[in-house]
Amino acid sequence: MSTKERILDAARALFNAQNTQAATTNHIAAACHMSPGNLNYHYKNREAIVFALYEQMLSKTVLDEEDLPATMTSVHEHEQYLVGIYFEYRFFHRELLFLLSRDEMLKTRYIADNIAHRKRIAKVIEQLEENGYLKLPDASVGEYLCDTILLNTQFWESYLETLDRPVNESGIRSGFGHIQQAMRPYMTPKALQELETEAF
Amino acid sequence: MSTKERILDAARALFNAQNTQAATTNHIAAACHMSPGNLNYHYKNREAIVFALYEQMLSKTVLDEEDLPATMTSVHEHEQYLVGIYFEYRFFHRELLFLLSRDEMLKTRYIADNIAHRKRIAKVIEQLEENGYLKLPDASVGEYLCDTILLNTQFWESYLETLDRPVNESGIRSGFGHIQQAMRPYMTPKALQELETEAF
Repeated sequence: MSTKERILDAARALFNAQNTQAATTNHIAAACHMSPGNLNYHYKNREAIVFALYEQMLSKTVLDEEDLPATMTSVHEHEQYLVGIYFEYRFFHRELLFLLSRDEMLKTRYIADNIAHRKRIAKVIEQLEENGYLKLPDASVGEYLCDTILLNTQFWESYLETLDRPVNESGIRSGFGHIQQAMRPYMTPKALQELETEAF
Repeated sequence: MSTKERILDAARALFNAQNTQAATTNHIAAACHMSPGNLNYHYKNREAIVFALYEQMLSKTVLDEEDLPATMTSVHEHEQYLVGIYFEYRFFHRELLFLLSRDEMLKTRYIADNIAHRKRIAKVIEQLEENGYLKLPDASVGEYLCDTILLNTQFWESYLETLDRPVNESGIRSGFGHIQQAMRPYMTPKALQELETEAF
């Protein structure tokens, strides 16, 4: 593991356990058993560490267009995988808007990525419809499902906090259950059958 | 208008136009044409002003149990009303989690209010079902609708920001349109007929 990776792992653990404001670069350096000066050589400030962690999370979650799920089973498998990643980087969604407000560069980048992500979600819904898993009465329902999925994946952890529910893997999984529930009225018998043994 | 009300109005305008961190108590005092010392006599810090604004918003939106909407039309009227209030206090939802993280007292109070609010939402859904507007296949769908409504009312403004969409009245209204879309598969013909002329 490179020094940079060690720093990112230690920072992620501290950000998750506390929050990005409580965990200073000095704390992160101490957790890595290195001097603040050495840490500073690798990452010039906390914003740079948050940015690198965001890129790391992104590289683990973004799918190429040709790999986007096209069956109910593959959607479900991808969601199961995301539960683990979202838990690993839970500080990020928990503090999302605050982090964006602190770093204009992260904000610009995040919004561009998010708009691109919404297009990928639309593509998945389109594929599920083409492959006979979803039957949407009109295009507005497709838009509605895109918004539901994107709203949930970004803010479900925050939602848990506002009800004093724990932000653990089971809590994060319940967010994907919520998405599944939103899609259910539009699922065909074929989709329901495929899901039967794998629902959240 | 009392001095306290004048301060809250000026603070709300500044919080909406900028954000709660950029708008200091000095800026708020200047906007009220009063000295920082005089402002401090009424509100000891910015947290106290945010707390008072939260209470003000709450007093305008919380319904007594006997006034909870029981028809599709009254639900829709209440939502139209909320669009205006949420726009008036838009800084609050936009910065929700950050504000809660800055003030333990606000956080404790907000979470308790939010849990109580979820019960009121459940009651409205129950009434709509009893009055023949909704037909829910099972109790889990009622829970799902409660989560959808509460997630949307709290985080829709944040969602707009992550897609670089404007947080204006039309944006806030689209959040209620999203809630309506989530309820639609469970609406009875009676509900759909009542909504026909008043959809978002």
